[in-house]
Amino acid sequence: MHKLKGKRVAILVADGFEESEFLEPKRRLEEEGAKVDVISLASDKVRSTRGHDWAQDFSVDVALADADHRKYNSLMLPGGVYNPDTLRGNEMALEFVKAFFSGKKQRPVAAICHAPQILISADLVRGRTMTSFSSIRKDLENAGANWVDKEVVVDQGLVTSRSPKDIEAFNQQMIEEFCEGTHRL
Amino acid sequence: MHKLKGKRVAILVADGFEESEFLEPKRRLEEEGAKVDVISLASDKVRSTRGHDWAQDFSVDVALADADHRKYNSLMLPGGVYNPDTLRGNEMALEFVKAFFSGKKQRPVAAICHAPQILISADLVRGRTMTSFSSIRKDLENAGANWVDKEVVVDQGLVTSRSPKDIEAFNQQMIEEFCEGTHRL
Repeated sequence: MHKLKGKRVAILVADGFEESEFLEPKRRLEEEGAKVDVISLASDKVRSTRGHDWAQDFSVDVALADADHRKYNSLMLPGGVYNPDTLRGNEMALEFVKAFFSGKKQRPVAAICHAPQILISADLVRGRTMTSFSSIRKDLENAGANWVDKEVVVDQGLVTSRSPKDIEAFNQQMIEEFCEGTHRL
Repeated sequence: MHKLKGKRVAILVADGFEESEFLEPKRRLEEEGAKVDVISLASDKVRSTRGHDWAQDFSVDVALADADHRKYNSLMLPGGVYNPDTLRGNEMALEFVKAFFSGKKQRPVAAICHAPQILISADLVRGRTMTSFSSIRKDLENAGANWVDKEVVVDQGLVTSRSPKDIEAFNQQMIEEFCEGTHRL
């Protein structure tokens, strides 16, 4: 317990993120002592989905425009279908995500389901071994990733899973990588 | 008027297609005398979206499992976010779409917004000049397409547009290509 005491984690979301891919990882991160900030485009609220239906709103801690990536040890990207489609089209979101991968060091990043679409738009997947929701497999392969069909894949601090069904394995591996901290590539 | 008399057009959709990208092209195709069939995964109804909200249901004419591509002169693919994400993960949908591009001949295909995601999964975009909703530009480029930012793009019978804002130009070019018929590549 409290493996992540003193660590700060950013969760970046836009409307339409999959609720379980947000709530479960957030709960586990906080149980392990991490301080988690929910970052989104609007400064007040962001709306989740359950499958293809709208679900509850959550409070935003920091508006993306005010977010300083240097405050965070790690980044978590939930899936959903609308959420990554919006974030990948937002230049500020792409810059925020890229900052975690800069240079020869990478801060740990965990991305589930459709969230790797954001990593494609940020040009971050070439040569990486990873997984995702199956519908975007071809996009990851075309972007130069080595796509594998496993519940959780870890490659030098990049943790990926396929869907809410994988959430337990995802959380466990995420906590391990977030605990290890920055990886030298 | 009645440029498309005697022509049969397939519209392939799953839940979450953008209503205006379905209704407007369908209306124009029928005004020009085409016989249009709505094809979907379920045999009864399919639900549209307006932006990110669920909208009205439409009747399905032919279930995909019963659809014979040889009956159709042309194919129209509306956008939306959920719709192409579902269709690109469905092997039967990919086979249906591929049939329009088979061999050295291509029957005209019109795809708008996120619909080109289906063409990526069906391996149909390499070397093609086309456009799409901007969020999937990178996926199309990584798949080998020559992506351009125009309201409508036509390349050897493949008509593409970016969003509902382009619908008038899309419809006009679609009708022209559907009228011309099969292209030899």
